[in-house]
Amino acid sequence: MSGGLAADLPGLDLVVDPDVLDSLSHDDAEWAPAGRPVGAVRARTTEEVSLVVAACAARGIPVVARGAGTGLSGGANAVDGGLILDLTRMNKILRIDPDNMIAVVQPGVVNDDLKAAVAAHGLWYPPDPASAPWSTIGGNVATNAGGLCCLKYGVTRDYVLGLQAVVGGPAGTYGTAVRLGHRTTKGVAGYDLVSLFVGAEGTLGVVTEVTLRLRPARAAAPRTVVGAFPSIVAAGDAVAATTRRGLLPAALELLDRACLQAVEEWKHLGLSATAEALLLAQIDTPGESGQAEADALAQVFRDAGAQWAEQSTDEFEAEALFAARRLAYPAMERLGPVLTEDVCVPRSAVPAMLASIEEIAARHGVTIATIAHAGDGNLHPLMRTPVGDDAAREAAQAAFEEILAAAIALDGTVTGEHGVGLLKRRGMRQELAPPVLAMMQAVKQTLDPRNLFNPGKVTGDPD
Amino acid sequence: MSGGLAADLPGLDLVVDPDVLDSLSHDDAEWAPAGRPVGAVRARTTEEVSLVVAACAARGIPVVARGAGTGLSGGANAVDGGLILDLTRMNKILRIDPDNMIAVVQPGVVNDDLKAAVAAHGLWYPPDPASAPWSTIGGNVATNAGGLCCLKYGVTRDYVLGLQAVVGGPAGTYGTAVRLGHRTTKGVAGYDLVSLFVGAEGTLGVVTEVTLRLRPARAAAPRTVVGAFPSIVAAGDAVAATTRRGLLPAALELLDRACLQAVEEWKHLGLSATAEALLLAQIDTPGESGQAEADALAQVFRDAGAQWAEQSTDEFEAEALFAARRLAYPAMERLGPVLTEDVCVPRSAVPAMLASIEEIAARHGVTIATIAHAGDGNLHPLMRTPVGDDAAREAAQAAFEEILAAAIALDGTVTGEHGVGLLKRRGMRQELAPPVLAMMQAVKQTLDPRNLFNPGKVTGDPD
Repeated sequence: MSGGLAADLPGLDLVVDPDVLDSLSHDDAEWAPAGRPVGAVRARTTEEVSLVVAACAARGIPVVARGAGTGLSGGANAVDGGLILDLTRMNKILRIDPDNMIAVVQPGVVNDDLKAAVAAHGLWYPPDPASAPWSTIGGNVATNAGGLCCLKYGVTRDYVLGLQAVVGGPAGTYGTAVRLGHRTTKGVAGYDLVSLFVGAEGTLGVVTEVTLRLRPARAAAPRTVVGAFPSIVAAGDAVAATTRRGLLPAALELLDRACLQAVEEWKHLGLSATAEALLLAQIDTPGESGQAEADALAQVFRDAGAQWAEQSTDEFEAEALFAARRLAYPAMERLGPVLTEDVCVPRSAVPAMLASIEEIAARHGVTIATIAHAGDGNLHPLMRTPVGDDAAREAAQAAFEEILAAAIALDGTVTGEHGVGLLKRRGMRQELAPPVLAMMQAVKQTLDPRNLFNPGKVTGDPD
Repeated sequence: MSGGLAADLPGLDLVVDPDVLDSLSHDDAEWAPAGRPVGAVRARTTEEVSLVVAACAARGIPVVARGAGTGLSGGANAVDGGLILDLTRMNKILRIDPDNMIAVVQPGVVNDDLKAAVAAHGLWYPPDPASAPWSTIGGNVATNAGGLCCLKYGVTRDYVLGLQAVVGGPAGTYGTAVRLGHRTTKGVAGYDLVSLFVGAEGTLGVVTEVTLRLRPARAAAPRTVVGAFPSIVAAGDAVAATTRRGLLPAALELLDRACLQAVEEWKHLGLSATAEALLLAQIDTPGESGQAEADALAQVFRDAGAQWAEQSTDEFEAEALFAARRLAYPAMERLGPVLTEDVCVPRSAVPAMLASIEEIAARHGVTIATIAHAGDGNLHPLMRTPVGDDAAREAAQAAFEEILAAAIALDGTVTGEHGVGLLKRRGMRQELAPPVLAMMQAVKQTLDPRNLFNPGKVTGDPD
């Protein structure tokens, strides 16, 4: 780290070891370029974050905040000459308030740790990205993370009532800590800056505290309904039919055969992979109504051509199936560099989008495995290429861009929940009209006039 | 209307009649000052809105968009020398898409008309401000309207996926129509400009089309649980205990004796007014679980000191009670000018806030009737003053400001759902730290650099 900056920050936990610095310089997005930072700071308090931001502003050093680094778009990747601000040490749950069903947490709290802590009070924090065992609330807020149960329960933004953030620009000098939003369930005093910061990937300021809405714990374990399909498009048909039938499962996930095999080879969960695609659904409506919904959903699966469809009566089997879903991404990653898509299309367009992915994969000779929050229309085609095979890499890159274009053509978006980061900047420019991009750039410019916070991400120019 | 502007807008539906213009110059907020407009236009299409905005920008004439005028903060009041843009003729439901559970509507569609139209497709649009029979979706979007069922189902912002808006500033020339957001259930391609526009009260642009998320219709009529309490604070205790017990009714409303009497004198619904306060709850969990929740809630009411508490077994009685709740505001208005509060506090602070309101009312000698979305902590104390009684009016104004201060002291907000408009600008400045206000003003300045859209509202200086 430059001696000057280090001298500005006495008593802070500075990282200079090159190997550690390297590990802090990128997230989990393969192929996203990472710059060379001047150093990293492991902040412990909001005051330390303020000091760091003020010192960096004075020296014109960009600040890239990060949590666990499980992001999949390069949003937390270092920029050349910038400082990494590691917030994983800010991992305290500051308050759980059962009377008001809220929690106040530091950004480094791991999602699953929060879930466990509030469960002890009979409460539930629904957002559940597959990375929940490792990813932090700060990272979830930065990307507006989704997960399995957003079909019924919404995404991270739906749970953020208030934020503390260290900002610059119109709020005063860089390093000013502000509180945005409220601690009440409703509030309309001024513009919704909280929703603006959620999903902004740290480009508008550094979030140092989050006030979260909670829900009462679910009364009983959800019912799991599983369907096995002879083709991935048939599974897509079942997804579209589920919505059409008025059914709203808590989760409706799709795994194709390649994903199932990758998990089975790694974890030996006893999954059979005779089908081309599985749909996994959770119904959490309690009592007889829940049973009726589960029966109706199994029938929808059968009507759409399922080889079989039934409610899992075995809790261990149900858990194994959802564990397989959560492990699909790391299981694929074990086998080589993975390029991950995150397109989202209207639910009725899921069959067309799945067909399009198959066609693009075949035409480019690329192996694509697909997992999906199918009920949300949010698909994660995973492209795997052998290490060092440049031709395969180029083919995968071409397929990646074509899948984005196909999603946009179906009234969809290039990113449902992973964020723009570095990898989706080009796709975002295809999706958004130039005036809309100009509005976003104007907001960035006015709230961060010195372009200090995570420069180049989201609204920055693609390479 | 100035001849120049009229000449700019051939073929548009211009309003020049002074009485009509006067009726279009204010919303339903007593005491909020209204300016004198140069004229009004009843737009029929987005293209007409674009034309109007471009013409007004060229001549430096402010634009105030309005719907049905049921707002309660003066947000739609005319400004001196400005143009009123009446959007009530843009009242087409453009599309109902059951497969994707979305609707696309023009801003002038009345909330209840949308509800009826989507119900025919087995769908439900939950946000239900008490003004739902008259208020428009555009106005609901402008104020981020809440209502009775937001306790469980959220507010307007939670249902807006996308917007078309006519804007200016960085998007290009004033009058440019842009599409913000998406038609998918999830999407994180760039900043959340949709949430920024929702609740902005028309200060960032004119919303001309809204894409709304819908839910499946509820399977059966909700159960109604009613409790009668010997004091309003005891009813507040029951509200706090409901959350503490982990119960999440679809609605949890409070009416005090003054409101009940005003409705009964007007509508003769057969309501008895022997209690100081009623709590009305709706439980919409289906089947036996719903019955168990209703029983538990009645017990919570009794434990908090209810004189009686039971599930209504008579659908007509239940409907009459909720009708009384919806009619409370107009029933009070019949009796004289009403100044309406909209404070929102954490649920656990509802008893303290209700006690504070009683104390402030007594000290200032002001008659305050209270209706409340009590489960949200969102209270509407209504101050009524005899026509022409200036001393009473001053006392009410003093009480109004003290109630705002009391809400802020309890970690609450000055406005839960009505918006800032004109009446809450001073209170908002007490609630928000100066750097946060500065951020909001910077956003307004960057997206509307000529201060054309509804100037003076929300972030404007109080008189």
